[in-house]
Amino acid sequence: MTDHDIPADQLFPGTGDSVLDSMSFLSEVAERHPGAVSFAAGRPYEGYFDPESIPRHIETYRRYLRDTAGLDDTVVRQRLMQYGSTKGIAREVLAEHLLRDEGIDADVDAIVTTVGCQEAMYITARALHSRPEDVLLAVSPTYSGFLGAAALAGIRVLPVADSPDGMDLDDLSRTVRSARAAGLRPRALYVVPDFANPSGMSLDERTRSHLLALAGELDLLIVEDSPYRLIGGEGRRASLKARDTERRVLHLGSFAKTVFPGVRVGYCVADQRTDDGGVLADRLARIKSMVTVNTSPVTQAIVAGCLLEHDFSLESANTRETAAYRRNLTHLLEGLTARFGPDAHEEHGVSWNVPTGGFFAVLTTDFTVDDALLEHSADRYGVLWTPMHHFFHGGPQPSGMRLSCSSLSPAEIDTGLDRLAAMVAGVRAGCRGGDR
Amino acid sequence: MTDHDIPADQLFPGTGDSVLDSMSFLSEVAERHPGAVSFAAGRPYEGYFDPESIPRHIETYRRYLRDTAGLDDTVVRQRLMQYGSTKGIAREVLAEHLLRDEGIDADVDAIVTTVGCQEAMYITARALHSRPEDVLLAVSPTYSGFLGAAALAGIRVLPVADSPDGMDLDDLSRTVRSARAAGLRPRALYVVPDFANPSGMSLDERTRSHLLALAGELDLLIVEDSPYRLIGGEGRRASLKARDTERRVLHLGSFAKTVFPGVRVGYCVADQRTDDGGVLADRLARIKSMVTVNTSPVTQAIVAGCLLEHDFSLESANTRETAAYRRNLTHLLEGLTARFGPDAHEEHGVSWNVPTGGFFAVLTTDFTVDDALLEHSADRYGVLWTPMHHFFHGGPQPSGMRLSCSSLSPAEIDTGLDRLAAMVAGVRAGCRGGDR
Repeated sequence: MTDHDIPADQLFPGTGDSVLDSMSFLSEVAERHPGAVSFAAGRPYEGYFDPESIPRHIETYRRYLRDTAGLDDTVVRQRLMQYGSTKGIAREVLAEHLLRDEGIDADVDAIVTTVGCQEAMYITARALHSRPEDVLLAVSPTYSGFLGAAALAGIRVLPVADSPDGMDLDDLSRTVRSARAAGLRPRALYVVPDFANPSGMSLDERTRSHLLALAGELDLLIVEDSPYRLIGGEGRRASLKARDTERRVLHLGSFAKTVFPGVRVGYCVADQRTDDGGVLADRLARIKSMVTVNTSPVTQAIVAGCLLEHDFSLESANTRETAAYRRNLTHLLEGLTARFGPDAHEEHGVSWNVPTGGFFAVLTTDFTVDDALLEHSADRYGVLWTPMHHFFHGGPQPSGMRLSCSSLSPAEIDTGLDRLAAMVAGVRAGCRGGDR
Repeated sequence: MTDHDIPADQLFPGTGDSVLDSMSFLSEVAERHPGAVSFAAGRPYEGYFDPESIPRHIETYRRYLRDTAGLDDTVVRQRLMQYGSTKGIAREVLAEHLLRDEGIDADVDAIVTTVGCQEAMYITARALHSRPEDVLLAVSPTYSGFLGAAALAGIRVLPVADSPDGMDLDDLSRTVRSARAAGLRPRALYVVPDFANPSGMSLDERTRSHLLALAGELDLLIVEDSPYRLIGGEGRRASLKARDTERRVLHLGSFAKTVFPGVRVGYCVADQRTDDGGVLADRLARIKSMVTVNTSPVTQAIVAGCLLEHDFSLESANTRETAAYRRNLTHLLEGLTARFGPDAHEEHGVSWNVPTGGFFAVLTTDFTVDDALLEHSADRYGVLWTPMHHFFHGGPQPSGMRLSCSSLSPAEIDTGLDRLAAMVAGVRAGCRGGDR
């Protein structure tokens, strides 16, 4: 090392910051095995991506600004190309969409448009971290992007026990009360009520209403993340925010799955009043101004144009995509049954949950699933998946793998499952490592 | 306050976080006075903004990916619309631009493409904050966006004294040594060597080489921010990074002034090696993945397409803009002389510096310039500017105002200067406040 090189331990994130390490490791494995079938990537289906839609959406929004909003060309040009409002330039269009698709009646001043939902998670975690004793809560396992945002904001996330209903509410109560007894200040619970990442599971009606009531009792905010809601198909339950009569819920959204990921636009509805006469969204915007100044108005125009072209409804804009996701998930679950049979646990040491929509299902195993097994699976069998341990942040950690089927074709799912079944058989025959 | 409202003091940023307060206050004043002539906004000139360039740039980049890079349509579509590399999708184009315009030979692996330069500042400040004793340094006054990024990352910025050369290097030495003696760990100096915000001043040749030598002696990194370099016109001096033979310099850039602000694309060249075998850019990318995942590939395509259309040179792409900025700055400086005369200090209590390019000049006053005077100036005289105190973060704070002339026409500059001169006369006649 020469004198101008930097000791790695003098930089954040340190090697102990396991969430960030996880993300790098997983993307590196994927990059080293471009030919593998990947049940790892939680990516939207690409089959309907249309690059021609990009200029069309922008043009639709320009026309809307000119013809409906009545702005002159100079102002339209400025809106699209100059610096602009930190909270976002197309919030009235977003608000109409939230009303139409979600029944959420959001004031435009309570909306902050963000660079993907990741930025919404980060600024929320940062805003809620004002003292060392502040903590957040989330079911363990939970989405690693949220854990990473919290790590960056320097705020701890306490684990809440998982359950077949999606969350153990008794454990939530216990965790909040014991945290308070220990001098900590629980600020908010992060939850993905619909088709959660990684579990794929959804909160049922009863759990939703109990959770809202409990948040009131415990005086806790809820940070509701909703990436998969509008592509889940029939039987959609009302969001927590739509049921929220007490402004307990911050509603986070993403257009990555409903417009396209590369647009990098998300948002946060934060209508909580602060006792200085503002709303929480004002604070979030002030933080955002120091992270990214504002979200690109070009990408906001793409989202707004897409919404305008579909009468503000992304659910109806995504009927083809939703059908593809349902088809894939059904194909995955039926394929697991076909390969492992009705006595999967006894005969093969595996079992799986049965989500009703979304991108993910979880295969639970009676053998150890770790990063070494993933490498082995990629090298020897050509199939990728995500070890579940990357999503746990405390509490019991049953061994297993997250299987994502969102961006595959049914034929790829079949190939991947054949390889997965061979890998499982190999592990159980004790030849893991030996045949590398 | 009902039980679900949030006490303002339980949120970050607290009211003591003056940088963030400053930014909100300044934009609020501007919003309340849309009709005022604004010397406040440091915005690029809008006269040449062309919304038609947006789809054209995207198409240029698509054609490049197809015809030059030889990618098939599916891969091109994926590149533009799917999630993508955290470091950026068009780094080879950015690297060619850095070589062409700046003589910087950057390895693509050392480049991180960011959501504007603001994100580059934030992730840099965050990466360098690994222990409580870590501190950064910057001339006082300095760009408030950098101070905000540091505040968000929780890292202190020590003030270095200003000088007619742009920085007092003796004070830099003293500050670093006394910080170390006090147990602090100075990590890096932030500096805008060309047409600095707010001062407008540039480091001369001698100061540049002395600064680099001193950084070596003091074992300090330099974070070089370069937003105005390519629109400054003749006589441009080599950047610190182009002179950097020891990987002492992180080079931050923005396309806000050279493509357009709404594109929200910036970058960081961080080629410093870390002793775990990586480069600093890897760490920055890991942090970025938790802030915004990746920069919108659509906006990266716009920048890349613009570069491809101009043979990688933004200096030559901006000849009209550069001429407009030079014209405006000359008009502003001549207008000050015309209104305040050769004995401005004695007769009117004002003096100003004479930058050779960029967006800003500073009017120093022998009367107090504060936020109340700005409100008065806006209400009574219809002219906006930025009180200098918003840019100081320690050290002596001479009273004054930053005047930006970048987005105005010569006629607007004349009107604004007439109003400014009337306001100065009013203050000196003692009628400030009385005639509100």
